[in-house]
This record gives sequence, C-alpha cells and structure tokens, in this order.
Amino acid sequence: MASAINKTAHAFDKTRLEALLNRRFFYAPAFEIYGGVAGLYDYGPPGSSLQANIISEWRKHFIIEENMLELDTTIMTPSSVFETSGHVARFADWMVKDTKTGDVLRADHLVKNVLEARLAGDKEARGLAAAPVVEDDKKKKKKAAKTHAVQLPDEVVAEYDTILAQLDNYSGADIGELCRKHNLKNPDTDNEVGEPQLFNLMFASSIGPTGQHPGFLRPETAQGHFLNFSRLLEFNNGRVPFASAQIGRSFRNEISPRAGLLRVREFTMAEIEHFVDPDDKKHERFDEVRDVKLTLLDRHIQESGKSVTVEMTVGDAVAKGVIANETLGYFVARIYLFLIKIGINPQRLRFRQHMKNEMAHYAADCWDAEIQNSTGWTECVGCADRAAYDLSVHSTKTGHPLIVRQALKEPIVYEREVPEWNKKALGKTFKQDAAAIQKAVESLDQEQLTTLKGQFAQGKATIKTADGKEFELTPEVLTIERKTIKQSVREFTPNVIEPSFGMGRILYTLLEHSFWSREQDVERGVLSLPPVVAPTKVLIVPLSAREEFDPLVKEVYGKLRKAGIFSRVDDSNTSIGKRYARNDELGTPFGVTLDFASVQNRTMTLRERDTTDQRIGPIDEVIAVVTELVNGNLTWDEACHRLPAYDGVQAIE
Amino acid sequence: MASAINKTAHAFDKTRLEALLNRRFFYAPAFEIYGGVAGLYDYGPPGSSLQANIISEWRKHFIIEENMLELDTTIMTPSSVFETSGHVARFADWMVKDTKTGDVLRADHLVKNVLEARLAGDKEARGLAAAPVVEDDKKKKKKAAKTHAVQLPDEVVAEYDTILAQLDNYSGADIGELCRKHNLKNPDTDNEVGEPQLFNLMFASSIGPTGQHPGFLRPETAQGHFLNFSRLLEFNNGRVPFASAQIGRSFRNEISPRAGLLRVREFTMAEIEHFVDPDDKKHERFDEVRDVKLTLLDRHIQESGKSVTVEMTVGDAVAKGVIANETLGYFVARIYLFLIKIGINPQRLRFRQHMKNEMAHYAADCWDAEIQNSTGWTECVGCADRAAYDLSVHSTKTGHPLIVRQALKEPIVYEREVPEWNKKALGKTFKQDAAAIQKAVESLDQEQLTTLKGQFAQGKATIKTADGKEFELTPEVLTIERKTIKQSVREFTPNVIEPSFGMGRILYTLLEHSFWSREQDVERGVLSLPPVVAPTKVLIVPLSAREEFDPLVKEVYGKLRKAGIFSRVDDSNTSIGKRYARNDELGTPFGVTLDFASVQNRTMTLRERDTTDQRIGPIDEVIAVVTELVNGNLTWDEACHRLPAYDGVQAIE
Repeated sequence: MASAINKTAHAFDKTRLEALLNRRFFYAPAFEIYGGVAGLYDYGPPGSSLQANIISEWRKHFIIEENMLELDTTIMTPSSVFETSGHVARFADWMVKDTKTGDVLRADHLVKNVLEARLAGDKEARGLAAAPVVEDDKKKKKKAAKTHAVQLPDEVVAEYDTILAQLDNYSGADIGELCRKHNLKNPDTDNEVGEPQLFNLMFASSIGPTGQHPGFLRPETAQGHFLNFSRLLEFNNGRVPFASAQIGRSFRNEISPRAGLLRVREFTMAEIEHFVDPDDKKHERFDEVRDVKLTLLDRHIQESGKSVTVEMTVGDAVAKGVIANETLGYFVARIYLFLIKIGINPQRLRFRQHMKNEMAHYAADCWDAEIQNSTGWTECVGCADRAAYDLSVHSTKTGHPLIVRQALKEPIVYEREVPEWNKKALGKTFKQDAAAIQKAVESLDQEQLTTLKGQFAQGKATIKTADGKEFELTPEVLTIERKTIKQSVREFTPNVIEPSFGMGRILYTLLEHSFWSREQDVERGVLSLPPVVAPTKVLIVPLSAREEFDPLVKEVYGKLRKAGIFSRVDDSNTSIGKRYARNDELGTPFGVTLDFASVQNRTMTLRERDTTDQRIGPIDEVIAVVTELVNGNLTWDEACHRLPAYDGVQAIE
Repeated sequence: MASAINKTAHAFDKTRLEALLNRRFFYAPAFEIYGGVAGLYDYGPPGSSLQANIISEWRKHFIIEENMLELDTTIMTPSSVFETSGHVARFADWMVKDTKTGDVLRADHLVKNVLEARLAGDKEARGLAAAPVVEDDKKKKKKAAKTHAVQLPDEVVAEYDTILAQLDNYSGADIGELCRKHNLKNPDTDNEVGEPQLFNLMFASSIGPTGQHPGFLRPETAQGHFLNFSRLLEFNNGRVPFASAQIGRSFRNEISPRAGLLRVREFTMAEIEHFVDPDDKKHERFDEVRDVKLTLLDRHIQESGKSVTVEMTVGDAVAKGVIANETLGYFVARIYLFLIKIGINPQRLRFRQHMKNEMAHYAADCWDAEIQNSTGWTECVGCADRAAYDLSVHSTKTGHPLIVRQALKEPIVYEREVPEWNKKALGKTFKQDAAAIQKAVESLDQEQLTTLKGQFAQGKATIKTADGKEFELTPEVLTIERKTIKQSVREFTPNVIEPSFGMGRILYTLLEHSFWSREQDVERGVLSLPPVVAPTKVLIVPLSAREEFDPLVKEVYGKLRKAGIFSRVDDSNTSIGKRYARNDELGTPFGVTLDFASVQNRTMTLRERDTTDQRIGPIDEVIAVVTELVNGNLTWDEACHRLPAYDGVQAIE
C-alpha cells in the first residue's frame, strides 16, 4: 500500500510558491532585464509545457470529442469590425486619476481595496480573527490598502458588505459618488481621486504604410468566428447546431495590472462558439451530464447583496430555470469536467451568474467558472449566451446575410387573405394616386383585409392612404381572395453559446491548488500536478553521468518515448536526492533510477512524487507500470501491488 | 499491386488550386465580408488542422528529438528592446510613391515586376517559348506589369538578368538610380515614382492608459529568447550548447502585400535559437546528417550575377567551407529532412546563401531554404548565424551580463609580469599625482612592463602619465614581479544559430506541391498530402444515414480513435462518389465504406486517395492496416498484399 501523506501540514504560503515558480522558470516578468512591463509575462520551459498540455487536453475534451470546427483567425483587426461589434464604444473600464500625482487606477479596484482594508481593520479592532494582514513589501509594488484597527458602526459594516457584493453592478457615476460619500482615496498616496472616466481596453495600431487604416488587436477571438459564419455553415453542410473553436492570443490594455498571471495585457484564450437554433436550445448529449453536481451562485442571490452558493445537479438547474437552457447547462457541466480533469480542486470551483449591469454588452446571460485562490474567487472561464447579437449587427452593417436556411421537412401550409389587383383598371381609375392606394392596401393585416372583403361583399370599400386621403374602391379594381400558402424554407439567425477560457488564469490557479510543502520540511515544496498536464511525466536518473549507464538510459528513454511518454534525463552532477527534490518542484510525477544493479540485473526503481515511495522491478515491467500510471489506467496503490517495495538494498556482486 | 497513376496529365493550374482552397475553406481573406484587408488571412477547419499537424511534426522533429527548451514569450514589446536590437533603425523596406496617385509600392518589387515583364516581352518578340502571359484579371488587384512583345538589345537582356540576380543586394539609392536609368514606372498607372524611402515594418502601439509607453508587435520571436538567456542557461544547469524553441505569432506591416499566404502581415513562426561556444561550432550529431545531399546556391555565384546551383552532401559543404561550420550545416540538413518529411518536393527545394548587403543587420551568415512554386523561388526557412550580436547589444544596454561562465577542466596556468606597489610610499612621494601614475602603469602591456622591470634593475624608471607629465619611479615605490596566474573560469558570449520557419509559406507551397487533377477529368482535383500532415486521416462513409449503420460507424470511429487515428464521419445526403471526391480535395488519404455487407459480414472496404484503388477485408483487419498506413509503417503496395481487391460485388442475402 502507498504511504500516507499529509499535504496540509503547512499553511499555503504564496511567497514560497512564487519563489519556486520563479526559480524553476515556470514564468517570469517579460523584459525583466529592461525593468519589465506590468501585465506581460514570458513562460519558460516548464510553464510552456504545462500550458501546451492543458491546451492539448482542451483540444481532446472539446474539439475532438465534439467534432468542432477549428479556426485560426488574425489578431490584427480593422477598426470597422469593432465599431460594429460595439467594442470601440463599450469595451472599456472606469479609471480614476490621482489628483496630485496623475497616477491612474482602475476605479472598481480602488473601491474594493479600500473597503476591504477598512473591514479588515474593523475585525481587528473587534478582536475577531482578522484575515492575515498583508504588509507592504517594499520589493513589490504597493498593492493593497493598509489596514488600520478601527472599529466601524455595525450599519457601516453592512453597507460595505453590500457594496462589495454588488460592485460589478456599478456605473462610473455610481463609483464617483461612492468615492465622495465614503471618502475613498488612492491608497498608495492618500490623495483624492478625480471623476471616473472610461478607458478603452483595446490596443490600437495602424495597418499599411499610409496611416489611413486604423486597427486594433483583438480583445477576444470571437469576432473571427462570427465573420466566417457563412463559410463555417457551408463547411458543415448547412446544418446547425455546430460549434467552431479557436485557441489563440488576445490583448487587453489593462489600466494598472498588478495581479501576476491573473490580470495580464496579453493572454492565450480558447473559445468555442456554439451556433444553435434559437427555438431549440436542447442538447442531444445533455443526458451524459445531467447528474453532474455544481456549486452555483445565481444572479438573484447576488442582487440581494449576498454570496451564498447552492449545490445542484445540472439537470435540476435547467429544470428549475436557474440555468436558462440545456445547451448552456451542457457547456457549464463540460467546463466543470474539464477543469477537474486537469487538477482543479472541485471544492474551490463555483459557477457565478453575471448580474444584469455586469454583463458584457453582447451577452444575454453569462455564467463564470470562478476558481478560488489566494486573491479570492477569480473568473477563469466565461460561458455566455450571446444570443443573435453579433451575427445580427455584422449582417446589418455589411449587408451579408448571416443566417441559416432550413428546408422544412413538412412544408407549413396555411391560408391567407390576399389582395388581387386589376392593375389596368387601378391605373386608369386612380392615375397618380394608384401607387399610394396599393401601398395602403398591402400594409393591412389579415383582420383588416377580412373587413375589407366584407365591405366588397356589400359592393364597395373605402381605403385611407398614408397622407390621409380617402378613396372608394370597387371589385373591378380589387378583390380579396383566400389563398393556400406553402412555406418550405425557414430562415433564422442562430444564437451563440460561448464558452471562453483564459488559459493563464487556469494555469496559475492550478499551480496554487497543486502546491504544498513536505510535512518534515517546509522548504521542500511539491507541485502535485496530475500526469496528464505535468510538464515531464518521468524523470530518468542515472546514478552518475558515467558511460556505463548510457546504453540503459538510451534504452529506457527510447522505450518510454515509443509508449508515448515524455521523459527527461537528469545526469547532472548532484545527488539523486537533490535531483528528485528539483523535480518535485517541477511537478514531475514519477522518477526511475538506473544504478549498478540495473546494469547487472536489469532492475530499476520507480519513485512516486507525492508519497516518495520507491518500488523496484525488471526494467520492462517498470516501464509497463509507469505507462499505465501516466495514462491514468492505474493508481499508485494498484502499482504497489505489481511492484515490491524498494528497501534501498540490492544484491550486486 | 496498386494501380498506376499519372499526376502530371494536366499542367499545374493555380486558378483551379485557389478555387479549391477557397471552396473547402483551407483559408480565406480575413474580414472578407468587410471587404478584406491585404495581407491578413484566416484559416478554416482544414487549414487549421493542416497547420496544427505541421507544427506537431515540427515539435517532434526539433523540440522533442533534441530536447530543446520551449518558450512562450509576449508579442507586445516595449520600444526600448527594438531600439537596442536595431529594429527601430533598420527593420525597414524601401518604398516608392506614385508621383500622381500617391499609391505606395515596395521598391524592389517594382523593379522585379517591370524588368521581368520586359524580358518576357523580349522572349515573345524573339518567338521563343515565353512564360505564360499573366493577363490582368479584373476581379483581382492588378498584380503584374503588362507584357508587350518588344525585342531588347542582347546587352540590355544581359543587364536586366544581372540586376534581377543581384536585386536583394541594392540600397535605396541604387534602386532610385535604376528607376531613372531604366525608366521604371508604376505598372498600375504608368506614372513615375519618387525617390525610395525607408518604411519601418513594425506595427506600433502604446502600452497602458497614459500613452507614455510606446510598444511594437514583434516582427520575430527571437528577442524573447535572447532576453531570457540567463534563465534558460540556468535551467540547463549552466551548460552550452543548448537550444530554445518557440512557436508563435509575429507581425510585419508589409507595404503592399499581394501574394496570398506568401507575403502576409501576421504569421505563425517557429524559431530555434541554438546557443553555442564561438570557439567550438562542432555538432555532436553531425555524423547523422553528413551524407544528406543538398542543392546549394552560394553567395559567390549570385554576386557574379548567376543562379547556378550545385549538389553536395552537407559533409562536403562543411569540409569545403561552403557552409561555414558543422552546427550551421547540421541545422540546414535537419531543415531539409523536416521539409521532405511533411511532403515538400525535394526537386523544388534549394538552399540559397544571402549576399553581403542582403543580410539582416544582425546576421553574420545566412542560408535560406527556398521552395519553388508558381511565383518563383520563395524563402520559407531562414538559417542565420547571428553570432553574438543580440546578446552583446542587450547586455551592453542593460548592464545585465548575458554570458556563459565555464569552469575549465584544467585551469590555465601562466606567468605574467605584475606591478606591485608600495602604496604608502607612492602617496607620500607623489601626492595628488599618485593616481595618474598608478593608472599609467596599470595600462602597460607585458612587453612594456618587462622594459620597466629592466629599467628598475638599473636603479630607476621613468613613466609618462596621460596628460604627458613624466615622473621618475624607484623600486621603493614600485617593483615588477613575475607571478603565476591560475585561471579556472572562462567567460564568453555564446554565438547563436537561428533556424526560423515561416509556417504559412511552408503550408502554401506544400499545397501547391500536393495538387493535381485526375487524368480523366481536370475538374477532379486531388491534394496528395502525406498522412502525417493530412487534416483528416480516414473518412468513414456509411452507405446512408440510416440508423442500422450507426453502431458500426461508432465502433469504427472509436477503434480508430483508440489507435490514435483522427477520422471523420460523412453521412451527408449525397452519393459515396461525391463524398470521396470532396475528400480528395480535402487531402484525406484513406476512406472506409460501411454498407449492408458490413452489417451482415463485418467486412469493410478501404479506398486509397491517389490511386482510388479499393480493397476489402474484415473490419478489424482493415483498421489494423489503415493504422499502419497512417503511421507510415506500411506502403499502399504492401497493404494490397494484405487485403484483396474489391470488385464492387459482395455476397449479401
């Protein structure tokens, strides 16, 4: 049996995690030797691999599993597209300027920082267990308001709590009023701030040598899907529903990003646009996810100023109308399953519905997958119902129809009253008024046409034209006939359900969820990344760099590679223990050691990262076991039944 | 045996290929419904898959095979970085303006277009087989100068040929002179053009809300590698050689791109930076590629105004100094092997060395892999020796050492003459002149110190300070001693060999090399993409969408997926022949058909795309055969020995 381990012996220490990620080059501030640029990060080898593995799993879980149509569209976009989509006018955040220094702050973040600091001070003054006070660290930028132990009246505490729960719902004017009413100042300088102003978050540029073609870097990949809708529909033989998918870089010129990978100016997204009949948002695979249990925080709870979640199956949530329809529910459940598969802790994952004022301008409904981490709950995946917004505005703007034409299986047959003209008599009788009369009649509805028909039955009828003149018509000029109409094609603009993943946020929260320190030594950090996403699956450790181990190292490396397992050799000039410790930090789940016994007996030891258990067996058997472990077909407990424990002693001559 | 096929029955027809690529949505102009933007393209489902497969093979061939360190760095870059790298000053093309319309043209392209048109006209006038004349197509932008059948004097033809061979070598002033001398005008308008001016090809933007931080979109991924050099070196335990690799988007604001995927403003690159000891450019795996035969066009041939290639093994090319060193040669050969593996025709691939004036400002040497296509020879991969340029300039600018510290196995021991001061006596004797005297002595070389030592042996010595004053020194103040020096660490700035791949150009030329029409029907186009990169490997074709085929379709799809083979089901409402024809255009190498015999006898037919041969066998045997075919472990000829031919008749009840 595998050894018991205690991963919670030490409280989570963000400083230790960040030091590890920096030391092992998971990621680092971009342009570091030039002093860095806020909100821009480079991924080093383990970070790049981790990201590539998450993306690869995403591609399997979504694109391949559901036969989605993959796209790769451009980042540089002419401004006309974002004028139509509404981003030029509305893709913006409220910023405030420090009235003395001119420093720029994001308005809602200012409110959150200052109020949370006051609430923490209140708790401290009341002698309650305050949240650990964040001290200003001089090496970092000042990032949180200072906490002072000052007790607040109970009604003020309640008011602050309400403001914080509804913060995403406030307009710029609301925030300006809040700043004045509650005397909110720039926490860095204690200066007052000016009125909130809108700042557009798109990076602007210019296309071509003349400077006459303004462009923006896309803030989402979605427009690339919508603009290609007709081509995608044709590729799918004209049928809906279908989904397109794209993984790529997007850009947002954040006002003053200070939260590491959680708020960056350039990021990798994975977006799905699922095009669906607005009259039929059922999903044919909904039964497969019906029983998935989710933690939900709906709009109504938040708008009442609370943050209480409920547990519910997706099936129940859709049945009760908490989640609007099956397709939205299906994707929420699929997002949940994906995040759990790559190692996100389900206890720290919830789905929060957007409040009305909070939603992006294009969205009709939206549920965020929020993942809890050291900064609170962070949106990592959005799942929005964009309705027909985007296809409609682009179609109207360009005149290019972005619709589905569906042949009806059974043509719809119905009867209607239809005006039948005697054009010759009409012209002869009414001359220049003929056109106005015709227009007046054509605009009548069925009820009015029936009335008219009744009048003709009596001999003649009166019609009023748009300019108020009245004319008398006879059956010689016009009759109203009942006709049978057969409609065989239905046209509609599909709705869009959009799951949108921020890969950097998922990657960072996964690192937080995976990090712990060994019980016996807080300095020995471990990243318990699941094998499916771990940058390296198996570490091959020869006892030393001596040549006699070379053939075995090559053999094991080659056999693992043939089995599809990515391994690395570490023959660096340091102890095996230190090499394993380094790879615990890199999240490498398994290690195999080649020593003199391997050369003589063809045995190899296998080490598991979390327990540090070591087992031993013939080289080929160990390779077979580790392959099953990495592919998720075997647990470590089961592996322990296949391979005996290694006691550190081997018979060699 | 497989049927014989004739892929060259019809001449290559670019119009047909482009129609196919557009119809099947390999790629399309981005923002097409907004009228498009020159040089920006979106990839649809088959284009995205083809690109993803090429990248996946690239990752295996380079990153995994050579254990490279993968990076993912940002596109947005502060201007200071590109000021240092030289891109702000020198990453530019010469443009000319039409003196009447103000239209902007790339100067070298103007020269090429006009001279080539005149040469074609000359050939026509001489009654020689002229290259097919490109007629202006009104639907496309005018893209080539018109050809007039005018004979030129022989010496003019020779002069034009020389100009074209050396075109990349000309400066802006040279091109201005050419325009005047040869009366070169804007072929679109026949107007004169102005003096060539430099246009910087980087897209500019601004980072953050204040507008005070200019930035550029990277025109190459390379700077991200160089700026992280210290971290990469540490990750590699301080050792060179090692290579970093990155796949990502880059941007170049081309002046007037008109060549489809061959000249675009946004593109996916894959770049390797191989860091190597400048004193040791041997490569430990060079023997593995020594016998690879290449077609080379070196600098000297071109500078003599010719374009004659030679065939040579990489081993010979390095031995003869045609290619400067083993590491450069190794990568040139590896590039060749990669391109052949994904399906580039080796007969249409050559390596051309850059001429002196043509090279990028950072390069010491450069070989381009050029692939022949309907527009001529196009650079698709560059393999540059950037020497120590980038690391040196960034290190100088930032003060951050970007060097390797190498512990010498055997410390270097040598003797030197060293000045030994009696500081107290020096100060006492020379007071305010002491520092200048000391500086003057410290700057002497070994020979001068030996001379000084000789003077002291005679009693005293004279030394001249920087300001020209002379001082007399005695051994009480200074002696020159012979000392043994032991140097145990060597410091150096590594050189960089950079293979840099333009994925879009490779993808497009591969499509040209793969395209042909069936002998019996020119309308039936085929893309003979190798299975390794084909968007879909196997098409599953049920006779109809009837439910009785569903279980078999699911079984075959599932078994192929388990074997790692990506398949698609086509149950659309059209004949099997039409479905196969569509998939010939999509480059799908194999198709399997499920019909009533499959349901009764569990047999399945297998169709090969190029020959259209059909074989038949038990379902599981066909799956086994197609798996080996896709993985490259079986040829179609061999498959024909395993499965009997299908004659279209099956016994069913």
